[in-house]
Amino acid sequence: MIRSNEHYAGLSGSYLFAAVAAKVQAHKEKSRALPVISLGIGDVTQPLVPTVVSALHSAVEEMAQASSFRGYGPEQGYAFLREAVAAHDYRSRGIDIRAEDIFISDGSKCDVANIQELFSLSSRVAVTDPVYPVYVDSNAMAGRAGTWNGQRWSDLIYLPCTEENAFVPDFPAVVPDVIYLCYPNNPTGTVLSRDALTGWVDYARRHHALIIYDAAYEAFIHEDSDIPHSIFEIPGAEEVAMECRSFSKTAGFTGLRCAFTVIPSSVTVTGPDGNPVRLRDLWQRRQSTKFNGCAYIVQRAAEAVYSQQGLREIHAVIRSYMKNANRIRAGLESLGLSCWGGVDAPYIWAKTPHGMGSWEFFDRLLGQASLVCTPGAGFGPSGEGYVRFTAFGTDADTEEALGRMKGLSL
Amino acid sequence: MIRSNEHYAGLSGSYLFAAVAAKVQAHKEKSRALPVISLGIGDVTQPLVPTVVSALHSAVEEMAQASSFRGYGPEQGYAFLREAVAAHDYRSRGIDIRAEDIFISDGSKCDVANIQELFSLSSRVAVTDPVYPVYVDSNAMAGRAGTWNGQRWSDLIYLPCTEENAFVPDFPAVVPDVIYLCYPNNPTGTVLSRDALTGWVDYARRHHALIIYDAAYEAFIHEDSDIPHSIFEIPGAEEVAMECRSFSKTAGFTGLRCAFTVIPSSVTVTGPDGNPVRLRDLWQRRQSTKFNGCAYIVQRAAEAVYSQQGLREIHAVIRSYMKNANRIRAGLESLGLSCWGGVDAPYIWAKTPHGMGSWEFFDRLLGQASLVCTPGAGFGPSGEGYVRFTAFGTDADTEEALGRMKGLSL
Repeated sequence: MIRSNEHYAGLSGSYLFAAVAAKVQAHKEKSRALPVISLGIGDVTQPLVPTVVSALHSAVEEMAQASSFRGYGPEQGYAFLREAVAAHDYRSRGIDIRAEDIFISDGSKCDVANIQELFSLSSRVAVTDPVYPVYVDSNAMAGRAGTWNGQRWSDLIYLPCTEENAFVPDFPAVVPDVIYLCYPNNPTGTVLSRDALTGWVDYARRHHALIIYDAAYEAFIHEDSDIPHSIFEIPGAEEVAMECRSFSKTAGFTGLRCAFTVIPSSVTVTGPDGNPVRLRDLWQRRQSTKFNGCAYIVQRAAEAVYSQQGLREIHAVIRSYMKNANRIRAGLESLGLSCWGGVDAPYIWAKTPHGMGSWEFFDRLLGQASLVCTPGAGFGPSGEGYVRFTAFGTDADTEEALGRMKGLSL
Repeated sequence: MIRSNEHYAGLSGSYLFAAVAAKVQAHKEKSRALPVISLGIGDVTQPLVPTVVSALHSAVEEMAQASSFRGYGPEQGYAFLREAVAAHDYRSRGIDIRAEDIFISDGSKCDVANIQELFSLSSRVAVTDPVYPVYVDSNAMAGRAGTWNGQRWSDLIYLPCTEENAFVPDFPAVVPDVIYLCYPNNPTGTVLSRDALTGWVDYARRHHALIIYDAAYEAFIHEDSDIPHSIFEIPGAEEVAMECRSFSKTAGFTGLRCAFTVIPSSVTVTGPDGNPVRLRDLWQRRQSTKFNGCAYIVQRAAEAVYSQQGLREIHAVIRSYMKNANRIRAGLESLGLSCWGGVDAPYIWAKTPHGMGSWEFFDRLLGQASLVCTPGAGFGPSGEGYVRFTAFGTDADTEEALGRMKGLSL
């Protein structure tokens, strides 16, 4: 008799954004007066930049000719893209990352969800709280999270990030084996200083823990800032960290699908015989067995992002999103809300007024102004009392949303 | 301390095709006289057809305009493609499959590798032998395969398919919970008759087992044949089966990445409380947590395959590959080798002469003629003594390969 993975039974019914979408749909059916504007899910709205579009057309033409057609590509990604990533994102910053450390994929969501397969089921997992739900759910599905009490998983180690600790996680009482850090942070929009990140790298080295560093939003770090773009800027990280990055937000690839994971050969985990095993070799084995590479035409599009013209174009898009971020934060603050983020990240994290619950705030904003935010409680227990706004709307929608906010009664 | 998933330690060092590639590379470095021709890995060589190319260019243009740009798509795939699949691949054959039963993905390799996550770790897994290695390795990585003795995994149930049983698997002594069937078969190129497949569906119903039916090669079934294209042609399969299909071989998408999985809502598995759980709901939860959808432009390309012109074009390509298949099989038979497949499938399965080992045959073919096949032993213990040839080479390469074969001393 075929039995289900029993760990699925403990999951909450639906993924956060599906729950939000259902509420929005119900609102739309009830109230048709104002068109709904979403500052909720972090999806881009500006089109692909011209250099990327042109690279896509060229690659499609290659696929149309027998002489230049490409079938299965390398599971790890084409060398041309891995070389471009290593050169532009790392070596240009003085970081010794080589093409063979890079694994191209069809998305960071897949990478951060799949990476836990490489670890023992007995691994203790730490996540910041609030947190991107995929880290939690993927470990819960594997059976590493224990039981759900309605607020927390019994076996996860939560690292609260709140106003009280200025959103910098403290070292936990129980030592974890795996630590998920996402900076610039989703959902809070906050960053870790070089010192704070150095503290975490040193902590991981002391305890032989692994840091999974999600840097999907590094391109949004302000150019004058000293905030690290990569964990590999921190000495010693090359022994205890891997890093996930994506073209989704950086270059508008959410509908095109391309990301990458960086695992230096010096990162090891302990094998069943007690000897070190290279994490990179495990990931290579996983990817070559369960993945067949990212589409060739998409890899050519990603390569084009690194051309001089491509970089100019995507930076202009990023600047325009960050202009939205500034305006949203100013708008929320003018309502008297305390806000974080929106400076080195496209997310603004706002504290709800009068201790209001985050789903209640969400409902009011939707009901009164047909505006969608994301309830902080959906990101973990320490997200209660906060909501997330994203800067990825169009200029016109953002302008309209700010106008509607002025009339809110909170 | 971070520990590895101990089940990775039991895996053989490299994936079959990586092992073949290494041998080919070594041969190329040693002997530069004859260019190597591969009839080994099943990768297509003909370019994308014009209708698909045109759909790709149009979709790229949509992504270049703010008004038609698409960001994140539905994890399950766009409705336009799910509708097209349901209508053309199923309802046109009188099979009651609806769009909501279809899940679009970036490849069947991913789907067949990931699906095992939904099942209890205690599930007993049956695979035909020889078999596509991904079914085995993905279960071994999860810990469902037991220990490897150099030939077999202790906890897998092997269903031998050899000359003796005409490549039709018998029901095993131990009843499995999950049964992987791939027809038309990779690697043997053989098919299951309607009666034989009905027998397996009835078997699964009797034992509440699940059949994972990999129909990646259904488009190669000869048009005059009564061989089922889908397991859902068999009454009762809608309760015990799911089906995986791909555009990879059907439409030359190996470098473009698009496939789909069909799970009718009537397929259930037993949950931890003993109640039935819809398999479709589990897969939806898995995909929405760990996957972010297939690229929009690729889904538009797949949709174009189903247009009248698209179907005409891909059928012409398939016919040309099958012409290669006929010629390869005839060429091998003229050398005195017994062959199967190549009629309803793009693979030819040849018995090595004089009881020669399949890696030895591989080495001779490579050494004498710079031709690459795939050693049957790489697909499982019952593959020993056989080799696989594919029909996906170009016409010119296939012609040249056949000429070289005439001079072989085996």
